[in-house]
Amino acid sequence: MTQLSLPDDLATRGEARGSIIMLVLDGLGGLPHPDTGRTELESACTPNLDVLAGRSSLGMLVPVGHGVTPGSGPGHLSLFGYDPIESMIGRGVLSALGVGFALEPGDVAARLNLANVDSEGLVADRRAGRPMDEDGRRVIDKVRSGLRVPDDVEVTLIHEKEHRAVLVLRGSGLGAGLRDTDPQRTGLPPLPATASDSGSERTTEIVRDFLDQTGEILFDEPVANFFLARGFAKYVPYLTFEERYGLRAVAVAKYPMYRGVAKLVGMNADAVPASNEETVSLLEDHFGDYDFYFVHFKDTDSCGHDGDFAGKVSAIEAVDVLLPRVTALEPSVLIVTGDHSTPALYREHSWHHVPLLIASEWARPSSAEFGESACRGGDLGTLPGKDLLSLALAHAVRLDKYGA
Amino acid sequence: MTQLSLPDDLATRGEARGSIIMLVLDGLGGLPHPDTGRTELESACTPNLDVLAGRSSLGMLVPVGHGVTPGSGPGHLSLFGYDPIESMIGRGVLSALGVGFALEPGDVAARLNLANVDSEGLVADRRAGRPMDEDGRRVIDKVRSGLRVPDDVEVTLIHEKEHRAVLVLRGSGLGAGLRDTDPQRTGLPPLPATASDSGSERTTEIVRDFLDQTGEILFDEPVANFFLARGFAKYVPYLTFEERYGLRAVAVAKYPMYRGVAKLVGMNADAVPASNEETVSLLEDHFGDYDFYFVHFKDTDSCGHDGDFAGKVSAIEAVDVLLPRVTALEPSVLIVTGDHSTPALYREHSWHHVPLLIASEWARPSSAEFGESACRGGDLGTLPGKDLLSLALAHAVRLDKYGA
Repeated sequence: MTQLSLPDDLATRGEARGSIIMLVLDGLGGLPHPDTGRTELESACTPNLDVLAGRSSLGMLVPVGHGVTPGSGPGHLSLFGYDPIESMIGRGVLSALGVGFALEPGDVAARLNLANVDSEGLVADRRAGRPMDEDGRRVIDKVRSGLRVPDDVEVTLIHEKEHRAVLVLRGSGLGAGLRDTDPQRTGLPPLPATASDSGSERTTEIVRDFLDQTGEILFDEPVANFFLARGFAKYVPYLTFEERYGLRAVAVAKYPMYRGVAKLVGMNADAVPASNEETVSLLEDHFGDYDFYFVHFKDTDSCGHDGDFAGKVSAIEAVDVLLPRVTALEPSVLIVTGDHSTPALYREHSWHHVPLLIASEWARPSSAEFGESACRGGDLGTLPGKDLLSLALAHAVRLDKYGA
Repeated sequence: MTQLSLPDDLATRGEARGSIIMLVLDGLGGLPHPDTGRTELESACTPNLDVLAGRSSLGMLVPVGHGVTPGSGPGHLSLFGYDPIESMIGRGVLSALGVGFALEPGDVAARLNLANVDSEGLVADRRAGRPMDEDGRRVIDKVRSGLRVPDDVEVTLIHEKEHRAVLVLRGSGLGAGLRDTDPQRTGLPPLPATASDSGSERTTEIVRDFLDQTGEILFDEPVANFFLARGFAKYVPYLTFEERYGLRAVAVAKYPMYRGVAKLVGMNADAVPASNEETVSLLEDHFGDYDFYFVHFKDTDSCGHDGDFAGKVSAIEAVDVLLPRVTALEPSVLIVTGDHSTPALYREHSWHHVPLLIASEWARPSSAEFGESACRGGDLGTLPGKDLLSLALAHAVRLDKYGA
C-alpha cells in the first residue's frame, strides 16, 4: 500500500549521512491580495527566507493532484513520500496516534466531536460551544465512568482537546466501513451509524450502542450532550521512514494531528512544544540524534482559515525570524514548504500549488526571493508532492545511482 | 515490458517522413560555478547552439524520476521513449550488445572487470591497474584457452576495452538473478557468486566454477589475476524503434556502451567513430538513409566525472563548433540534450534536470540562449525523459491525431 515513489531497487547509500530538516508552514500557499497582487508569502518581509532562496532550488508542489484540495493527513503523507491516495488513512487513526494511544494492527478508531443537540433532537452546535479543555475532559470522564461495554471488545475513549475526542475499538474482526454520523450542518438530526460494507456490521452495532448510551449519560448536560463521529479507520502499520529511506526521523509539532501522522510513518513524535520558539528549541535539542527532522508550524493555516491575510503574513514573518537558528544547525538539506495552500482570501484549504525551497550545496538557485512567483520559475518545476522526499534524499547524497 | 508512453491507438502517419537527429551530450546538465553562478553549459561560448535555441522549444528533462540519478542505460532508454523503470536492463546485456555479440533471447550476460587480488585474497585493485587494451586482450585469451566448460552451456568470454570484459552464458533455463561479486571497495575479498532467486542456482554454479577456474588460470599473472562480475542480466528482446515508432534508426557513438543500448532498441549501430569530427562525418554519410539519427558525444560526461569544469565547458564548445555541419543537413527535427547531468562540481552523475532543445519549424521559441536557466523557463516545461520521443515524433509530423 505504501509504494516507494523511487524505483524498487534504488538503494539508499549506507555510508553517506546527510541530515535533512523539513520546515512545514501549514497551508503556506496563498492567493494574491487584490490591492497588491502579492500573496501572503510575497507580502511578508522575509529577509532570512530570501537569503536561503538564493542558495536553493525552487519549485511548486502539487500535494495530491491537480485540482485536489488535500486534508492535513494526505498533505503530510505526500510530503513524507507516501502516495497520498494509495496510503490514505482515516482521521480516527491519526487522532488516536496524535493523542499518544498505542494502536495495534486491526484497531478501529474514530474522531468524535462533542456537540449540542436540542430538545427536538436536532444538532444545534456541532462543537458544543467549543468547551475549554477541562470542561471537555470532565464530560469525557463522565461518559467513561457510566459506559457499559461488550465483553469481547475493548472500548477506549480519550479526550483530545476542547470538543475533540477519540474512540478506539479493539477486538477481532472489526471492520471500519462506517459512515460519518456528523450531518455537517446544524438543524439536522445526527445521522445514525451505518455500515458501508458487510464486514463492518458488528462495529456498527457497537457504535450505535455507544452513541445511544452517551446520549443517556449526557442527558442532563447543559451544552455538550451528544457525540458526532467521523473518520472511522482501521489501523494498518505503514512501512516506516527507517524501513523505506533508512532515515531515523523525529517530529517537532505542537498539534496532536501532526504528531499522529508523523508517528504513523515511524517518526519519534514525543516532543510537544508549546510555541514556535519552543519548536525551534526542541529541534536544536534533538539535532544530531536523527537523520530527518520534521518541524511543523500551524499559525499560517489557522490565519488562512480565519481569512486573516495580515495575520498569515505575520505568521510567516514569525517563522522567518526564527530561521537563523535553524540554518545555524547547518543541515545538509533544509526544506521549506507547506502541506497545502490555505489562501486567506479562500478561507479554506485549497488545491493551489505550494511553494517549495530546497537549500543544499547541490542546489540550482534561480531567485533571491521565496514566493509563489519565484517558485513557479524555479529549477524543480512543478512536481508531485510525493516526489519531494526522493529529492531530499538525493540532495543529502543518500541515494545510489539507478542502473549502470 | 516496453510499453509505449503514447496512447495505444495513436498511430504513426504513413505519409509524412520528417527526419529526426538527436544529439546527446552525455551528462550535459551542470551546477552553477560558485564564482559566476553559471553552469558549464551557460559558461560555454556556444553561438551556434544559441542561434538554434532561438528557433527551438526549450524544456527540462527528468530522465528517470525526481531525485533519481540515472546510470547511462536508463538515461538513454528514457531518451529513446522506453520507460526506464519498466524496461530496466542490466549492464551485462548492454555490454554484450555493445561489443557486437549477437545475443539470443534467454542468454545471460555479465560485465566482468579484470582485478588484482593480493596474497591474502583481498581485492587490491578493482581494475587491475587499468591495463592497455592489448594486455587486457592477452589475459582474456589466456583464460579462454584454459577454460573447461560444462557440456550443456555455451560460455563466451569477450574482451571489451582495457580491464573490461563480458561473459555470456547460453543454455536452456538459465536465470540471471545473481548478485554482483564486486565488493565495490579494495581491502575486501571478492564476494562469492550467490543467487537472489531460486531459478538462478544453475547459473550460480556455472559462474562459481568459472571464477574458480579463472583464479587458477591467472595465478601467475602479476596484476590481472581475478575477475569481478556485476550486472547479471537476461536478454529479452525489446520492441524496436521501427516496431514502436515506424522509425528506421541509426546510432553514431564512439563508445560500445551507447552502441549497445542503441542496438537493444533495434538501431543500426555498426558505425564506430574515433573522434567527434568523425562522429559528425559518419552522420553526414548516413543522412538520408534513416529516419532517426542518435549521435552521442562523451567528453562532457568524462570531464564532469573528473571535476573539470573548464574541460566540460570546452567539450560543449567543441560540439558547438561542429553544429553547423549538423544543421546544414536540415533535419525536420534537431534535438540537443543529455542522458543525465554530470555536474563538474558534483563529479558524478546526478539527479538534476537536463536541458533540452527541440529545433523545428513547429517550435515555440522562448530564448536566444541554450542553458539551464533558459530551459527551465522554456515552452516544454519540466517533463519526463520518456516523453521526449513522442514530442520528437510530433514535431516531425509523424503522429496522427488522437481521437476524433
